[in-house]
Amino acid sequence: METDRVAIIGASMTNFGQREAWIRDLLAEAGIACLEDSGVEPEAIDHCYVSNMSSGEFEGQGGIMNMLAHDLGLLPAYTQRVDQTSSSGGAGIYAAWQSIASGASEMTLLVGGEKMTHRTTGESTDIIASITHPDEYKHGVTLPSFAGMTARHYLERFDAPRESLAKVAVKNHKNGVDNPHAQFRKEVDLETVLESPIVADPLRLYDFCPITDGSAALLFCPESVAESYTDEYAIVSGIAGATDTHVVHERPDPTVMNGVVESGQAAYELSGYGPDDIDVAELHDMFTILEFLQMEGLGFAAQGTAWELVEDGVTDRDTGRLPINTSGGLKSKGHPLGASGVAQGVEIYEQLTNTAGPRQVDAEVGLCCNVGGFGNCVITTIMEAAQ
Amino acid sequence: METDRVAIIGASMTNFGQREAWIRDLLAEAGIACLEDSGVEPEAIDHCYVSNMSSGEFEGQGGIMNMLAHDLGLLPAYTQRVDQTSSSGGAGIYAAWQSIASGASEMTLLVGGEKMTHRTTGESTDIIASITHPDEYKHGVTLPSFAGMTARHYLERFDAPRESLAKVAVKNHKNGVDNPHAQFRKEVDLETVLESPIVADPLRLYDFCPITDGSAALLFCPESVAESYTDEYAIVSGIAGATDTHVVHERPDPTVMNGVVESGQAAYELSGYGPDDIDVAELHDMFTILEFLQMEGLGFAAQGTAWELVEDGVTDRDTGRLPINTSGGLKSKGHPLGASGVAQGVEIYEQLTNTAGPRQVDAEVGLCCNVGGFGNCVITTIMEAAQ
Repeated sequence: METDRVAIIGASMTNFGQREAWIRDLLAEAGIACLEDSGVEPEAIDHCYVSNMSSGEFEGQGGIMNMLAHDLGLLPAYTQRVDQTSSSGGAGIYAAWQSIASGASEMTLLVGGEKMTHRTTGESTDIIASITHPDEYKHGVTLPSFAGMTARHYLERFDAPRESLAKVAVKNHKNGVDNPHAQFRKEVDLETVLESPIVADPLRLYDFCPITDGSAALLFCPESVAESYTDEYAIVSGIAGATDTHVVHERPDPTVMNGVVESGQAAYELSGYGPDDIDVAELHDMFTILEFLQMEGLGFAAQGTAWELVEDGVTDRDTGRLPINTSGGLKSKGHPLGASGVAQGVEIYEQLTNTAGPRQVDAEVGLCCNVGGFGNCVITTIMEAAQ
Repeated sequence: METDRVAIIGASMTNFGQREAWIRDLLAEAGIACLEDSGVEPEAIDHCYVSNMSSGEFEGQGGIMNMLAHDLGLLPAYTQRVDQTSSSGGAGIYAAWQSIASGASEMTLLVGGEKMTHRTTGESTDIIASITHPDEYKHGVTLPSFAGMTARHYLERFDAPRESLAKVAVKNHKNGVDNPHAQFRKEVDLETVLESPIVADPLRLYDFCPITDGSAALLFCPESVAESYTDEYAIVSGIAGATDTHVVHERPDPTVMNGVVESGQAAYELSGYGPDDIDVAELHDMFTILEFLQMEGLGFAAQGTAWELVEDGVTDRDTGRLPINTSGGLKSKGHPLGASGVAQGVEIYEQLTNTAGPRQVDAEVGLCCNVGGFGNCVITTIMEAAQ
């Protein structure tokens, strides 16, 4: 008997950006759209996971998973909030996968979301910094400053041109123009990136993702159940998570994110696929330098060479061999913390079910990499089109 | 081929009470003790779940699951924080169970904890109230006030004596004297409870659990792996969670907690046991009235009759047929939110492995019921001794 695989049969995301809505509204919006997308009735939902880092800190509201189940008419479905900081969305995919693979649920709704823009940039940065080690953040080190130091090290050590980082931003913004849900649907040119204000030298404003409100949803079930709803679905072929040192300065090589390496290897092993089999990938480009580190950690490029692939257009959407961040990435789509990993999954699902519209590429196997903290925890998910 | 069951091979809890320690220290203390209890090395851990409701709100610290994995030397183990409000501990047991049952992990450490006492009672009450529906808590309804209204309704409708509620507190305090980790190791008499200050009429101070710091841990693996470590372990025979209306006043009968009923029925079904098979139970006695509602929702007593069992001594530890809260319950042991459901599991594990010391009862099958919000979400877990 072949084991029943875990399928994804529905996906949705809200518009990302500055939204006049609270976390409760955002979660419900994506949840309802996902049920409608799949044609599954609320009564069929056994488990409902909510990926969210900090609704308590951002807006003083807890219990959002129970509220969502109530608002969507899912009762008595089991609910739980999943927090793995900025990789909460990927962790939600993993929780949903386990709920189906263990037999605990036959239909699991995952909704990830965050409401952030009502707070100042300083307040949001402080809330996000509190997920790093107090020995670091209490001395003023925030995630952008880690990114700046890492970028400087990478560029000097591997003799990479500053422009290669900027080209990540240019590429992802270009892809985002075709994503109706993206926060910034506008192209930026190289000069704009290179002349934007310095944030953490050498990184400038356009090397960073924005602060965003939004949510995204996916619906999971066993493949045997999926077949009764649709012919167009995706399979989660491999998924794994890994943790790196919580104190970033303890890592032996600042250009190696061990959480990426370990979660990638485990996900490849479970799926039976390797780096060469991946047709499309969504990587966690919270900062442009992170796209390089994930490309190398996942085996798409040797250490210190990811920038060459970007320079050569290998990761371009319409002409490249391995399109990366066809959705626009966190860079142009936005980064509502708990939503981002789920939205990565939405993009890969759409690519594998041929519903990505103007962003569509030719893909049978896709990968998402969702990074929490500064690589403190990472989830890699590999999906394939149903056959 | 018989399916590999999910086993628990180690357990620990810190002292509960007012602790001079932060959440990071509390989690590490229980985690280390649990590994030592089981003889399992940190390198063997695949997944690590942290049950915690609000470290961000209570102490401004996020990312505590990644920090714990770092501090315990578990890298690159996968980590995730589990939040289901005051039932986060039970939800952690469910997440750990799913991680093993799905094959995602062969050794899962669960640590639940909360650090609360550095905040004022008012601040803690506000943080906890934010998990309920804003239509209710923004008008000043907190969990204690729900408890007061429900208790008044129950006593009048079922003609139950006020003393029967007080006897829950007396019983649980008596049990807690023999728990070295309990916050309050002192007996209280009926008069003390009945004459204590009114909090939410008819409930008085001794009808409520305290505010507490502490943590607790459990270690899970497949039964086939458990056998290589120990002969004394417990099996999770059944587990399920359920959600009730997030707006409490929408429920048709205020004395029926549907989350208890639904999660109990599903857990019984999965385990093959029924209410009559349960030898010992840990119920979520955050308020004395909740012990009645859970006894009835779980089928230990018909609606409106749980108070009679308490009056008759059926739930007494040393002489009763169905001892309830042998640990002292939340009432005397304390209620560090994310820890409480895990600590319930620790008590049942100790009862089933004959390591409960002076609290030991004769038990082959035990049950925990962990309640979030005012029954907004509930997890029921049934365990049995390994045979």
